[in-house]
Amino acid sequence: MTAQPTAAICLIGDELLSGRTRDVNVQTIAKFLAPYGIPVKEVRIVSDEQERIVEGVNALRAAYTYVFTTGGIGPPHDDITADAIAAAFKVGIDEHPEAAALLEARYKEMNTEFTPARRRMARVPHGASLIDNPVSGAPGFQTGNVFTLAGVPKIVEGMLGDIGHRLETGAVVKSVTVRGSDLREGDLAEALSALSDKYEGLSIGSYPWFRTVNDHGVALIARGTDEDRLAQLSEELAALVRGQGVNPEIIQGEL
Amino acid sequence: MTAQPTAAICLIGDELLSGRTRDVNVQTIAKFLAPYGIPVKEVRIVSDEQERIVEGVNALRAAYTYVFTTGGIGPPHDDITADAIAAAFKVGIDEHPEAAALLEARYKEMNTEFTPARRRMARVPHGASLIDNPVSGAPGFQTGNVFTLAGVPKIVEGMLGDIGHRLETGAVVKSVTVRGSDLREGDLAEALSALSDKYEGLSIGSYPWFRTVNDHGVALIARGTDEDRLAQLSEELAALVRGQGVNPEIIQGEL
Repeated sequence: MTAQPTAAICLIGDELLSGRTRDVNVQTIAKFLAPYGIPVKEVRIVSDEQERIVEGVNALRAAYTYVFTTGGIGPPHDDITADAIAAAFKVGIDEHPEAAALLEARYKEMNTEFTPARRRMARVPHGASLIDNPVSGAPGFQTGNVFTLAGVPKIVEGMLGDIGHRLETGAVVKSVTVRGSDLREGDLAEALSALSDKYEGLSIGSYPWFRTVNDHGVALIARGTDEDRLAQLSEELAALVRGQGVNPEIIQGEL
Repeated sequence: MTAQPTAAICLIGDELLSGRTRDVNVQTIAKFLAPYGIPVKEVRIVSDEQERIVEGVNALRAAYTYVFTTGGIGPPHDDITADAIAAAFKVGIDEHPEAAALLEARYKEMNTEFTPARRRMARVPHGASLIDNPVSGAPGFQTGNVFTLAGVPKIVEGMLGDIGHRLETGAVVKSVTVRGSDLREGDLAEALSALSDKYEGLSIGSYPWFRTVNDHGVALIARGTDEDRLAQLSEELAALVRGQGVNPEIIQGEL
C-alpha cells in the first residue's frame, strides 16, 4: 500500500485578495482531482509579489505531493508567476522554443501582432514541461511537482485536460450526503460524535443550510475510501434523521 | 505616519477543500475591510484538524495586523476551532459565563433543549472577548489580533457588525476601473508597463474577460491611496484605451 497522494493549490492574484473576484478555481481543481483519489489538503491565496509566491509555493511543494498554481501567466507586466516559479526552484528561465513556435503560429493565424509582451508567455523555468492550453494557446507548465495554470476559469478547465496522465492516483474518497429538512445541528451532535468514534477512518461532517424560514436543515456528509463501511454508516445516519421524525434524502457522491 | 494595517484570512473546513462548497467569505471580509484601509494580504484554507489550524493561525497572526478565521464554531463534534485557537495562543479554554447565559436564554426562548453539544458553543479561549452574533446567537470571539467567526456566510456578515470599532484604520485604497471592449491584454502590455514605472506606488492590474465571442475585453484597474495621482493615472489609462479605437467605461471603486 502506497501513501495517499495529496494536493495543494496556490492562487496568485491581488484581485482575489481585494474581494474584486470570487475564486472558482479551487472548486474546479478539487472536483477534477477527486476521481484520481488526490484530496486537496491546503489552499493559499497570495498577492502578485515574487517573494510571496516563492514562499507559498515552496511551503506547499515540500508538504504535499502536487501543487497547482493559478494566475499570473498572461502578457501583462504584473504577471510574474513564471519568474517566481523559477526563483522558487532556483533555476533559470528562458523562452521555450516549442511554446514560442506555438504562440507565433497562433498569432499569425489570428492576424495579430506577436508583440514582445505576448512573447513573454513562452518563457518557462528550465526543465519545465509544457501544459497544453486548448482555449487560448499560451501553455501552462509543470516544474517538478508544481503545475502552473492560467487564472481565467475556462482556461484552467482546458489545461486540466493535459494533467491527468501525469498524476499518481490514490484510493478514491467516496461520499454519502444525508439531508434532513428542519433539523438543527445541536439535536444531532451527540449521536454524530458517537458515530464518528464507531467509524474511525471515515469522516462525518455536519453542514446546516438556511435558505428561508421554511427551507432549512442539516446535511450530514460521510466520506472515506472504504465503500462497505461507508454504506453502513450512511444507513446509521439515515436512521438518525428518521429518529428525529424527518425523512432523509440520500445522495451518493465524490466530494 | 503609521504603517498601513494589514489582514489575513484563515478559512477552516474540509468542505471548502473538497470542492463541495465554494467560499464567499473572503470576498465579504475583504469588502468589509476596504473602507477601513485594511488590505487583505494572504488567505489560507485549512482542514478541520487542530494541527493545521494552529499552524495556519500562528503563521498569519505573526505576519499581519489582523487575522479573521471562519468556520468550525458550531455544535458538531468536528467543530474544533475554539480549542485550536486556544492551542495556538497556548492558553486554556472554558465556558464563558456571558456566552453561556446568552445561549441559555436564546434556546429557552426558542423552546429548544440546551444540550451539552449546544453548550460547547459557549467555550472560548481564556482572555478572549465575545463577538456579537445577531443572526443565530452563538457568539464569535476575539483573541489578541485574531477574530474567530462562524462559517455560514449570513452569520459572518452579521458578526462583522461588531468588528469595525475594534480596528485601527489605514489609508483607504481607492480604485479606478477602465474597461475596454474588444481589447486584448497583449496589445496594452507594453504601455501598461511604462505607466506602472511612471506611477510608482500605485498598482495597475489588467484583467481580461471573455463572456462570449461578442462580449470580451480587458479591465484595467488602478489602485492606491493617493487620489490625485490615481485620477491622473486613470486619465492616462482611458487615453490608452481610446488609442486602440475603443471608448472606455470608467468606474470608481474601492476594491
